[in-house]
Amino acid sequence: MTERQVTKLLTSWVESANREDADFPLNNLPLGVFSVGDGEPRCGVAIGDRIVDVAALEEAGLLDLPGGPLLDVPFWNELMEAGPEAWAAFRARMTELLAEGAAEQAQVAPHLVAQADAEMHLPFLVSEYTDFYAGRHHATNVGTMFRGAENALPPNWLHIPIGYNGRASSVVVSGTDVRRPLGQLKPPQAEVPYFGPCKRFDLELEMGAIVGQASEGPISVAEADAMIFGYVLLNDWSARDIQAWEYQPLGPFQAKATATTISPWIVMAAALQPFRASGPVREKELLPYLREPAPMLYDIDLEVALTPEGGAESVISRTNYREMYYCSAQQLAHHTTSGCPMNVGDLLGSGTISGPEKDNRGSLLELSWGGKEPLELTGGATRSFLEDGDTLTLRGHAQGDGYRVGFGDCTGKVLPAMDVPDWAR
Amino acid sequence: MTERQVTKLLTSWVESANREDADFPLNNLPLGVFSVGDGEPRCGVAIGDRIVDVAALEEAGLLDLPGGPLLDVPFWNELMEAGPEAWAAFRARMTELLAEGAAEQAQVAPHLVAQADAEMHLPFLVSEYTDFYAGRHHATNVGTMFRGAENALPPNWLHIPIGYNGRASSVVVSGTDVRRPLGQLKPPQAEVPYFGPCKRFDLELEMGAIVGQASEGPISVAEADAMIFGYVLLNDWSARDIQAWEYQPLGPFQAKATATTISPWIVMAAALQPFRASGPVREKELLPYLREPAPMLYDIDLEVALTPEGGAESVISRTNYREMYYCSAQQLAHHTTSGCPMNVGDLLGSGTISGPEKDNRGSLLELSWGGKEPLELTGGATRSFLEDGDTLTLRGHAQGDGYRVGFGDCTGKVLPAMDVPDWAR
Repeated sequence: MTERQVTKLLTSWVESANREDADFPLNNLPLGVFSVGDGEPRCGVAIGDRIVDVAALEEAGLLDLPGGPLLDVPFWNELMEAGPEAWAAFRARMTELLAEGAAEQAQVAPHLVAQADAEMHLPFLVSEYTDFYAGRHHATNVGTMFRGAENALPPNWLHIPIGYNGRASSVVVSGTDVRRPLGQLKPPQAEVPYFGPCKRFDLELEMGAIVGQASEGPISVAEADAMIFGYVLLNDWSARDIQAWEYQPLGPFQAKATATTISPWIVMAAALQPFRASGPVREKELLPYLREPAPMLYDIDLEVALTPEGGAESVISRTNYREMYYCSAQQLAHHTTSGCPMNVGDLLGSGTISGPEKDNRGSLLELSWGGKEPLELTGGATRSFLEDGDTLTLRGHAQGDGYRVGFGDCTGKVLPAMDVPDWAR
Repeated sequence: MTERQVTKLLTSWVESANREDADFPLNNLPLGVFSVGDGEPRCGVAIGDRIVDVAALEEAGLLDLPGGPLLDVPFWNELMEAGPEAWAAFRARMTELLAEGAAEQAQVAPHLVAQADAEMHLPFLVSEYTDFYAGRHHATNVGTMFRGAENALPPNWLHIPIGYNGRASSVVVSGTDVRRPLGQLKPPQAEVPYFGPCKRFDLELEMGAIVGQASEGPISVAEADAMIFGYVLLNDWSARDIQAWEYQPLGPFQAKATATTISPWIVMAAALQPFRASGPVREKELLPYLREPAPMLYDIDLEVALTPEGGAESVISRTNYREMYYCSAQQLAHHTTSGCPMNVGDLLGSGTISGPEKDNRGSLLELSWGGKEPLELTGGATRSFLEDGDTLTLRGHAQGDGYRVGFGDCTGKVLPAMDVPDWAR
């Protein structure tokens, strides 16, 4: 199923990075933006339970990047823009500085801060946000609920990575509270719509791919893959009742515009190379412009945890990124077919990642089958959709031999809806 | 039908601004970004057939804006950000400087350049782009073609200004050539799709509203109206055959991503106030959050001209912006219902503006009724959809008493598709 080249743990002088269950060993080196106390947000790299203040390393002359300085801003877009050679040089130098026995240990050590003391910010400026619908189990589940099992997949689905443009302004970093949206709603049996709080608020478990280079005109899947800078976990919060009423004929709009939460650490594509996985067997042959020249998915274990206010955590779903039908490179290649210019900082949501079994489903819509089969949580509470006070946490990691490349938590808590304003009554 | 307060021409010492048919009298003062020869792009204001180099006026101390300098960059976003008081101060001072008998005429005159000598650039940084489907004649025409006359309007249409997110990176300024897109296509009778050039390339006549202030959380229609900085003409180039195959279930994607052309001059909302017009009688009462507190459309005459390569121009459509069912303020208010943050520089396409008669239709899809009734052009050529070499020009103006507030041309020429790349064969 997968063709991964398993590598071993690279050991670091930062002890906490060498634990078997550490999300951030030396093999990973993910990129974030952090602040401590009242300090300004700065670029940092996670190692074990620490953050290396790489802006400080660059300032101190320990990190000399081609085209630098690139890290004197509170986002990673400048490193992206500098291109793949700079990305590789950055990883090589960071690996050198943090490896066990590094000559520079004493110079680097003062620039470590504890993750526990840091506040995380959006790691990059999101240029534009596109979301896909590229998981076959998810599309089949949703299609079956809405159109019946015979018509579950639309006729184009096995030929096109179906996508739609989302709203970049709504992307927030893990830890940001998410307020239940208001919206225009029409219960199926009602004659007319009304304006009020969403009653079917949901999550979507996704991966986000970050475009690290600009393009004009159509590009191949191989070119697209080389343009992807890294990945994050992504929760595409979804108001199912708003969506049901608004989405015909032009697709979801306000149902998806409240918030999209991403994990704070960008795992660079290079850190994921050992975990490459093949796409599925194709029921219908893809057109040449969409064929993968090599395995382009990744073997990344994913889970969703739900914690009610004051309650215990329940893991409500476990799945894997290799369940996708289309990979991010195929999505990006398709995105460019019409000549659509892509830019540094564009974010592509994979689409909801559901697996074949019931407990592999990546949304409550699927897990509770549209509310017909409420989910039982630890402690006995049930959920059809999200309730106020619920905290959702996505987690993911690729499992190596004695180490893992993890993403850190992607979390958000649901706040009650605001009161309906006077002018809307 | 309209409640406009007709005003008179304000006369300018720039003679060409005082002609009855001038798009840019002193009443207008639209904002663009221009360059001359090898010079850098700069902020300018159109007056008659000239452009005032307002960056130079600001530098010279003739234009002292609150929070300035605001015009030392090649885009108008900084003035937008400065807020409605700065917008009003800007217009008041420009009116003073350019009015007949202005004390500063001799100081300002050296900073005029001929529009004929200038190249125009995008007048603002487009943050995000949303397109709507808010013209009833257009939605009825398209719906009738696709679903029959009984089901022409989707059930939500009379309740929601239907919109979808577009691609900001594809927005270009008038005068930019537009290459016919490639894409995935499936003729209705074909078994499988293929990859090739679009065969049903089309225009959409729209107005674009520019959001000039940021918001978080839902806002009222009145607040939304106050946030709109100005308007442009907008041609939402559309690949109808790509759209037909891709758009279910999540809406148009690559069909709309090739290019969206806007006119180079932002006509500020203040310049359009005398031309306010009421919305239509509502067949179904709108929910309170969407009701207009006052007339919020504008009486703007619009036309579309098509010029084949080497041929004569044909005006193929004449309509008016007051044909819209939903105004931009209603669209913007709806856009914020879910808590979607709006930003300075967001662009909202009105949706295609068709009128009740055949020659009022704002797209070739409607004008040729899906290709079944090809349109006859001056000189005898016919068109179902656009052909390579065709130049499309949108024009618009509000008619005052002896003067007009115009938008200037919004034009683009269709170039042949690129060859299908080897990797896509």
